[in-house]
Amino acid sequence: MVLKTDLTIQNIYAPIESLLPKVEEQIFEILETPNELSAEVIQHFFGAKGKFLRPALTLFGASFGSAIPDLAVRVAAALEIFHSATLIHDDIIDSAYIRRNLPTVNVKWNSQVAVLVGDYLHDKAIGAIFESKNERVIAGFLGTAGLVCDGEILELKEKNNFSITEEVYFTIIERKTASLLATCLECGAALSNLPAEKIAALKRYGIYFGMAFQIVDDCLDFSGIQNEFGKTLGADLAAGVLTLPLIRLTALLDERTKAHVFSQVKSGLGQTRLSDLLRLLEEYGAIDYAFAKAREFTEKAALELSVFPASASRLSLEALLEYVLSRRR
Amino acid sequence: MVLKTDLTIQNIYAPIESLLPKVEEQIFEILETPNELSAEVIQHFFGAKGKFLRPALTLFGASFGSAIPDLAVRVAAALEIFHSATLIHDDIIDSAYIRRNLPTVNVKWNSQVAVLVGDYLHDKAIGAIFESKNERVIAGFLGTAGLVCDGEILELKEKNNFSITEEVYFTIIERKTASLLATCLECGAALSNLPAEKIAALKRYGIYFGMAFQIVDDCLDFSGIQNEFGKTLGADLAAGVLTLPLIRLTALLDERTKAHVFSQVKSGLGQTRLSDLLRLLEEYGAIDYAFAKAREFTEKAALELSVFPASASRLSLEALLEYVLSRRR
Repeated sequence: MVLKTDLTIQNIYAPIESLLPKVEEQIFEILETPNELSAEVIQHFFGAKGKFLRPALTLFGASFGSAIPDLAVRVAAALEIFHSATLIHDDIIDSAYIRRNLPTVNVKWNSQVAVLVGDYLHDKAIGAIFESKNERVIAGFLGTAGLVCDGEILELKEKNNFSITEEVYFTIIERKTASLLATCLECGAALSNLPAEKIAALKRYGIYFGMAFQIVDDCLDFSGIQNEFGKTLGADLAAGVLTLPLIRLTALLDERTKAHVFSQVKSGLGQTRLSDLLRLLEEYGAIDYAFAKAREFTEKAALELSVFPASASRLSLEALLEYVLSRRR
Repeated sequence: MVLKTDLTIQNIYAPIESLLPKVEEQIFEILETPNELSAEVIQHFFGAKGKFLRPALTLFGASFGSAIPDLAVRVAAALEIFHSATLIHDDIIDSAYIRRNLPTVNVKWNSQVAVLVGDYLHDKAIGAIFESKNERVIAGFLGTAGLVCDGEILELKEKNNFSITEEVYFTIIERKTASLLATCLECGAALSNLPAEKIAALKRYGIYFGMAFQIVDDCLDFSGIQNEFGKTLGADLAAGVLTLPLIRLTALLDERTKAHVFSQVKSGLGQTRLSDLLRLLEEYGAIDYAFAKAREFTEKAALELSVFPASASRLSLEALLEYVLSRRR
């Protein structure tokens, strides 16, 4: 059981933790290749462990059945591989140079290798998903793969659009982030043969959780702690990506101040300008507003869990919602 | 019936030509999206018509049954979309600026858009393949998707390796080019419910045809006609990709001449150095050798057709082999 004071990922993952090393094994098995260059890149990328959030959600989805089937471990691995493919491609798009404290594939090798190895991971993930022979898993995955891309293309299209609405922002984050997290829960639940309404409830939980997760992530781009590796405050905005805090701010500002903010952002965010902007976000309560929206989504997510009797897994999914809101870096 | 004197793609495609506009319709239907940016890119890319070789082979594969099923048209479209995704990603990798006489996606937009739209096409192609619900089509496609990537990664790894062997070169081109062409025939044949041995024969035809196709393409990089748009002689070599003519040449040269050629290539291929190299390739018969290899592959391909009774489709597949060998630009 997870107490509020024990909101660590380790504690939250406890009910499925013993399976995560098996997920890792499956990842390397699915990606096994005699191609030395691919093998090196795979070793490098998966050598740095991520949070394994997608495998964890897959396994949690499966954990509401009588037992977690082996196939759920395999599918969890495939979903992490798919996610990794999108990260490798995202790092090309963002010209990112650090991921998980290691050089990105586009930096350690080059963007050619990153494009191809991303494609390779993508194909291998899909192959493993198909092997599951589970219609719901396959259909769920294919639907979300298109959506993730679509969300990212929409985000690219809306870059530097200072009139982007909350609605468009929510569409983007639902597609690019929430849909895959929801699909993980859905796939796990389907593999454990849960009844349709429970699968649907977990899927909705995943969407709401994912929305909150991304909103908090976007807030941390303004309010987080700048650190040595990778994390630079205002990075999204510097890249032209407008997220909820700024969208909220621009909705509250008068035209003149808004025009001033835009011109500041356009001419590049130095430390002084960023400090000015952060003060403005603070003054107008824009980050609090975004956190409140995130909280609303976690509340909706929690409600979806009410169809499940009390269990360690249910407690973990509840705790995960608190954990997301409590993230500060 | 196709006569040797009528070796044009139009004549060769005659038995399946009426279905190609339907393939085009299906491409746009599969890729239909409310996302304006994606729609623009799709319109641009598919606005310039390619040779539609993959759809044609899919339909030829299907044409050996009693009738070409509608599903073959759909799968033909999906295979062309998959191929297009790899072209869009290849153009990022090669920093290419022209494809089919139009600016590439990475040039007209940028490489971010090219990465994501490539991924989007990839996902949509896979979705359409899966909808076919044909096990053989799905398995064939998934196998080849991984191989195409693998072949391209291997090519990347072998860049600037002046000791690359013919064997490795053949592995690369079989994976990156021949496997998809073979899969097109296989998918078409499977959808027409041909017996397993005929599907296998068409698949082998596709591999041999694909090998010949790529070898000739690689020869044309040295022996073709330089033209205004896109085609620059020696482009592969300038990018560090060693193909059959040069591999053959280096196998024949003494160590000193070989070292000289390498140093010339490494310091950049100007017009004079390229002319020197072309003279050497000529002198040692390296391009003739490569063409002879291509002819060997077409002969093997032709043999595979012997299990089929005479028909317009069989004649076309035979003519396609002659056509490939006769390509001069």
